[in-house]
Amino acid sequence: KSTIRIAVLPGDGIGPEVMAEAEKILSKIMDDDGKTYELIHGDVGGIAIDNHGSALPGSTLDICRNSQAILFGSVGGPKWEGLPPEQQPERAALLPLRKTFGLYANLRPAVIFPQLQDASPLKNEVIGTNFDLLVVRELTGGIYFGEPKGRENDRAFDTLVYTKDEIRRIARVGFETAMKRNRKLCSIDKANVLTSMVMWREVVNEMAGDYPDVSVSHMYVDNAAMQLVKNPGQFDVILCGNMFGDIISDEASMITGSLGMLPSASLADGSFGLYEPSGGSAPDIAGQGIANPIAQILSMGMMLKYSFGMNEAYSRIFAAISKVLDQGFRTGDIMSKGCTRIGTAEMGDKILAAL
Amino acid sequence: KSTIRIAVLPGDGIGPEVMAEAEKILSKIMDDDGKTYELIHGDVGGIAIDNHGSALPGSTLDICRNSQAILFGSVGGPKWEGLPPEQQPERAALLPLRKTFGLYANLRPAVIFPQLQDASPLKNEVIGTNFDLLVVRELTGGIYFGEPKGRENDRAFDTLVYTKDEIRRIARVGFETAMKRNRKLCSIDKANVLTSMVMWREVVNEMAGDYPDVSVSHMYVDNAAMQLVKNPGQFDVILCGNMFGDIISDEASMITGSLGMLPSASLADGSFGLYEPSGGSAPDIAGQGIANPIAQILSMGMMLKYSFGMNEAYSRIFAAISKVLDQGFRTGDIMSKGCTRIGTAEMGDKILAAL
Ligand SMILES: CC(C)[C@H](C(=O)O)[C@@H](O)C(=O)O
Ligand SMILES: CC(C)[C@H](C(=O)O)[C@@H](O)C(=O)O
Repeated sequence: KSTIRIAVLPGDGIGPEVMAEAEKILSKIMDDDGKTYELIHGDVGGIAIDNHGSALPGSTLDICRNSQAILFGSVGGPKWEGLPPEQQPERAALLPLRKTFGLYANLRPAVIFPQLQDASPLKNEVIGTNFDLLVVRELTGGIYFGEPKGRENDRAFDTLVYTKDEIRRIARVGFETAMKRNRKLCSIDKANVLTSMVMWREVVNEMAGDYPDVSVSHMYVDNAAMQLVKNPGQFDVILCGNMFGDIISDEASMITGSLGMLPSASLADGSFGLYEPSGGSAPDIAGQGIANPIAQILSMGMMLKYSFGMNEAYSRIFAAISKVLDQGFRTGDIMSKGCTRIGTAEMGDKILAAL
Repeated sequence: KSTIRIAVLPGDGIGPEVMAEAEKILSKIMDDDGKTYELIHGDVGGIAIDNHGSALPGSTLDICRNSQAILFGSVGGPKWEGLPPEQQPERAALLPLRKTFGLYANLRPAVIFPQLQDASPLKNEVIGTNFDLLVVRELTGGIYFGEPKGRENDRAFDTLVYTKDEIRRIARVGFETAMKRNRKLCSIDKANVLTSMVMWREVVNEMAGDYPDVSVSHMYVDNAAMQLVKNPGQFDVILCGNMFGDIISDEASMITGSLGMLPSASLADGSFGLYEPSGGSAPDIAGQGIANPIAQILSMGMMLKYSFGMNEAYSRIFAAISKVLDQGFRTGDIMSKGCTRIGTAEMGDKILAAL
């Protein structure tokens, strides 16, 4: 029986605290399912800068290379804010990880647990009930990595590049996920201004032929930023390039009102993936034991599903979280009247007990 | 006494309908102020494609060149949607106008009239009262115009370029407007990923030295897209490059809930400017006499203020609109219970009467 090997990179801020809870749940599930597994811990982000002089040290990369998936916490904090931009923990850890492991498909669900319906900044009639959308973001191309990129005297530049192949493979992920959901795909571009986005739209349209059951629409990114606020329920799967996906997925997360609840997956071809919460390292509340571990736990759940095919385990985690919310337990960020406020570890324990 | 010459380009969809109302008010104000003025009408957008084979014909450009300001309606509609992207009315009319006349500073106020407080998709406690922000967007540079831009086989690219001078002049507009408002400027960038945006941030920081009274902050664009939804009241003046400004200003407009109320100004050095509503040509309601003319009227007001130094005229228009809203008159888009629904021309007449 082969051993499942997972790289665990807790990072900075609340990362280690919420990761501890995700590991508790992970152990229980693996044991229940009779799996042999190994968690290999590595430093990443600010703590790796402090300990090894780099946000993504070679030793950590080696751990990742020897694993089948990466469970990532979050990185960054005020301590490292003075560093030059290219050495900042977030960028210097995440971008090379994405590129090295070919993690081109970023899945970011924006859902509202019915128990947290009131948390959205949007009016109830605007957000509706059962709000549930998925952003599929291209993660290893576009203006993030395009060459040339540089600075000459008083002129600085970046290049937004896409090839048809890059667009095809992320669009395929968009169409495939749409098939598993409500068969509705909205592709975001700026084809009225950008040459690369004209091609983006063409490729998506070409591929639509392979998916006659998916209803495809196109929206300019400025309009999408508006429509998400005006009528978010119109979307099911949103497909974006790297930069637009960065903006649109964050906006979508925030309209749920519970950023601390949202996981994300960054997938390569095959089964390798990196899984991390959508929120950040929240240095303001780090070390107090009050952070919400649910996003980290759900990210771990996504890992079980996408990297290890354990769909049932994912559902089990999801159901346990839902049960604990039904019981009225809340961390501070999702607290509401009549509920019981609990800390990070207690939340982990409750979910463990509810599995 | 010199004659004020204004190019009037109503365009498509609701453009001509709302423009007619703006012209009514304009005439009254000019007459009251004893100004000699000339309005020179030209075709632009889809109608110009139909009549002259181009969204921005030479004759229209000539009209603009012979004027001191451009009052612009809105362009585009389903009739022209089949055209190749670079011939689409919006792009083919607006981008060359901006570039030809050096309209580098786009001012987009996002305000909520107290009478329309409930229109926001955001909860009352989130949007607050007196919501009032101004987006200052760079409009003639960045990835919209950067070279090279093109396509080679299966690879397409665009270039995001900024020079220090380009950043300086738009940042100056940002700082100057902040000085006239609440002395709070938030500059949006993506300095953690883009080389051009590292320089953007540097230049803004350098210039901050000239404005010790302005409190300056920096925010990544993804975070800004979130913060606008989470806590929009934290912003006063937002400074952005062209692409980010496109997205962020639209998002900001929509959170007011009254896009049909919002004007915009696109300014060159000196007093030349183009003024247009923030919303589009709304082909779905064109020709029915029900469109809201207020954004067009306010755009005209901004023209009087910025191109002709008629600050008082602007305030007079603003006050008249406020009075009509107080009287309970509303077009369909801003209708609410207990108010009286009126059409485009009636709204124009009421505002005229309230001047
Ligand atoms: C930290 C930053 C480089 C990163 C990005 O822009 O992709 C982050 O915002 C994200 O969305 O994961
Ligand atoms: C029509 C389009 C080219 C334009 C832009 O992207 O600038 C529009 O969205 C705007 O904001 O004025």
